[in-house]
Amino acid sequence: MPNPKIISFTVDDVRFPTSDDADGSDAMHGSPDYSAAYIVLKTDSDFEGHGLTFTLGRGTELCVEAAKYLCQFIVGMTLDEIRGDFAGLWRKLTSEPQFRWVGPEKGVIHLATGGVINAIWDLYAKVENKPLWKLVCDMSAEEMVSCIDFRYLTDALTPEEAIEILKANDSTAAVREKEMLESGFPAYTTSAGWLGYSDEKIVRLCNEGIADGWSHFKLKVGDNLEDDRRRAGIMRNTIGPDRKMMLDANQRWDVQQAIDWTNTLAEFNPWWIEEPTCPDDVLAHKAIGEGVHPIGIATGEQCQNRVMFKQFLQAGAIQFCQIDSCRLGGVNEVLSVLLLAKKFGVPVCPHAGGVGLCEYVNHLIMIDYIRIGASTDSHVAEFVDHLHEHFVDPCVIKNAAYMPPTAAGYSATMKPETIEKFRFPDGEVWSTRNSG
Amino acid sequence: MPNPKIISFTVDDVRFPTSDDADGSDAMHGSPDYSAAYIVLKTDSDFEGHGLTFTLGRGTELCVEAAKYLCQFIVGMTLDEIRGDFAGLWRKLTSEPQFRWVGPEKGVIHLATGGVINAIWDLYAKVENKPLWKLVCDMSAEEMVSCIDFRYLTDALTPEEAIEILKANDSTAAVREKEMLESGFPAYTTSAGWLGYSDEKIVRLCNEGIADGWSHFKLKVGDNLEDDRRRAGIMRNTIGPDRKMMLDANQRWDVQQAIDWTNTLAEFNPWWIEEPTCPDDVLAHKAIGEGVHPIGIATGEQCQNRVMFKQFLQAGAIQFCQIDSCRLGGVNEVLSVLLLAKKFGVPVCPHAGGVGLCEYVNHLIMIDYIRIGASTDSHVAEFVDHLHEHFVDPCVIKNAAYMPPTAAGYSATMKPETIEKFRFPDGEVWSTRNSG
Repeated sequence: MPNPKIISFTVDDVRFPTSDDADGSDAMHGSPDYSAAYIVLKTDSDFEGHGLTFTLGRGTELCVEAAKYLCQFIVGMTLDEIRGDFAGLWRKLTSEPQFRWVGPEKGVIHLATGGVINAIWDLYAKVENKPLWKLVCDMSAEEMVSCIDFRYLTDALTPEEAIEILKANDSTAAVREKEMLESGFPAYTTSAGWLGYSDEKIVRLCNEGIADGWSHFKLKVGDNLEDDRRRAGIMRNTIGPDRKMMLDANQRWDVQQAIDWTNTLAEFNPWWIEEPTCPDDVLAHKAIGEGVHPIGIATGEQCQNRVMFKQFLQAGAIQFCQIDSCRLGGVNEVLSVLLLAKKFGVPVCPHAGGVGLCEYVNHLIMIDYIRIGASTDSHVAEFVDHLHEHFVDPCVIKNAAYMPPTAAGYSATMKPETIEKFRFPDGEVWSTRNSG
Repeated sequence: MPNPKIISFTVDDVRFPTSDDADGSDAMHGSPDYSAAYIVLKTDSDFEGHGLTFTLGRGTELCVEAAKYLCQFIVGMTLDEIRGDFAGLWRKLTSEPQFRWVGPEKGVIHLATGGVINAIWDLYAKVENKPLWKLVCDMSAEEMVSCIDFRYLTDALTPEEAIEILKANDSTAAVREKEMLESGFPAYTTSAGWLGYSDEKIVRLCNEGIADGWSHFKLKVGDNLEDDRRRAGIMRNTIGPDRKMMLDANQRWDVQQAIDWTNTLAEFNPWWIEEPTCPDDVLAHKAIGEGVHPIGIATGEQCQNRVMFKQFLQAGAIQFCQIDSCRLGGVNEVLSVLLLAKKFGVPVCPHAGGVGLCEYVNHLIMIDYIRIGASTDSHVAEFVDHLHEHFVDPCVIKNAAYMPPTAAGYSATMKPETIEKFRFPDGEVWSTRNSG
């Protein structure tokens, strides 16, 4: 097995002008430019590790600077050194004694951690010549658990319990892997329901989605109640009574407002209400869930770390666990949340979209299904159909299902011409605008 | 009343090499260089607003860049425009639709918000020719409450309740103000108990503290249980049975470990255990509190925003509320937490030390005592005796009490020669090191 040493890195600020149309518009993020701090780890061999953390445009520069700082800790390390104590490296990056003050384990520096850690996993999988999901699925229970920093988790999950969870699935893992290779993991689409879309566009996109086999559709809400009622009615009417509709308020409400607003939309039979309030507010999600039952509570794309997920699960505050592949500190922390969700019996329905998130999520749902969650009951992963053309190994959707990636690595390698063109502020797309 | 317009700003990275000795050392931050992102708002008059956010060295550069971005939103605004809708401006800064993704309301960008908002309040108070505490204490209940963004708070505190809390104190406020001007607000010292200090140094500093009238002493713990038992015994023995001793673990433990470790130190009769675990973990603090009763739980210096404080209070997870003047988004958000703490009957014992924090806290405890908390029962503010010499209007301690500041402003104006000398990386203190 090759053992490359990381000898240098680059971090680029890559931004796509998605705010030009209303793609990605929601109640709190009216005009996102989907972006990434994009990290390349170079080694003393031909192997490179590519990773990114997803952002919305302004603020990416902070994640870029933070990632540059963190990369310094891994320059000089060999892959074997990293593999030998991956949890230790993770803790080192998240516990740097001065740097952690401006987090800790949250916001800018944790997003940067996610990008750097993702790049390491990409390198690791490329060296092993496996797609990331396969690399992780082929690990022993002990090996997988050794990647996790259990600090602050042991009141809910110990390493021993984590190993038990994994071992209980071992005998059936091969069957599930075969199933994934044949039919993939169920996905839902958010492409039809952005807040800035016209009624006509929603109808058209829902009908196209039905024709393509989609059975779950998400609608952005929270800006105006009357608009939401009309739009939810249109979507329900278009997709029919049997397909699932999910609502997403993107943190717009306080507790009572969330309960009242959601209940006003209950007649359209939504499956979940996503991000009804502040992503930090475990107790509020719990209260809202009690007020809107049987509509489920979903959150996670801005859930800052494993400690917050742990509390959401301990409190019974969420019915759907929407991990984000970049906001969490990379695969290591994702694994801990997948295990927590399994222990508490909550389905993982990852957040995706943005740029690169579908590519990442595609691997994570395979790991969850084959080794951890081991169920598709109420498990469904978000899919948004944009920006995939910029990736060397874009995710593949077949019959509204994510198909397991086949190329070695973690799939977030962007095409060189994309980075060149969309780099901020000097890429062609931005330099033209800035001067005009 | 003058109405200056903000026309430009500077943001400097100012770092003090405090890691050269063991000042500030604790179980998670072994070698801090106390630092600040230092903001100056310039106006079309002679008035300037100076503000800072406190950091530990590396990472300050991220807060500097974030503050520069946020300052752009206030350039061109007059003080009257800001005062006319201060809560609206606060929400604008914390809700920028692209930028918020890398928070939201936490970490780097929220620390930057704190610094910028603090600078605005400094300008405001200087224009009114009052120290900040007096400016706020002279406001009507409605005026004070109008500064607060109640988003995500209304399940625990409404604007109407906040006004009621303030009005209930109105008739006795003048008495408390007089009392503060005469005898000040009780403080405790952390200067004697840093983790890196020798036993002899602890004894000497405790004895000096007793001679200076201090009655509350804090000891850093969490690195090694046997060391902690020895050090706690030494401190208790030195300060005697009647003075209060507080322990501070700086987030070092998981739940069971925190309970066990703290109970092992219970024989030394600590008043509180501070930051026993992850600052994000409301449920863990609650569980630890139940396990170490009657020792109280204190946390807050890394509590990221009002929503987390709200939950700590709602859950009964803390017995001491340690607001941080910079980690919260400036005075506006601090006011909301002071009101929440009053509603839930939890004393506010602000975090201070670092650089500039004592200067800020001095104002906040006056506001709390005169208008909100209105009690000194179990209320005590941290004091650490270093770096005050760098401020134009340093805090004044008399008989172990903070005396109300008298100069106009919010007291975080550093001496120009300090900024020149300690600016990173080009100030004399750092350029010499870098080259040598």
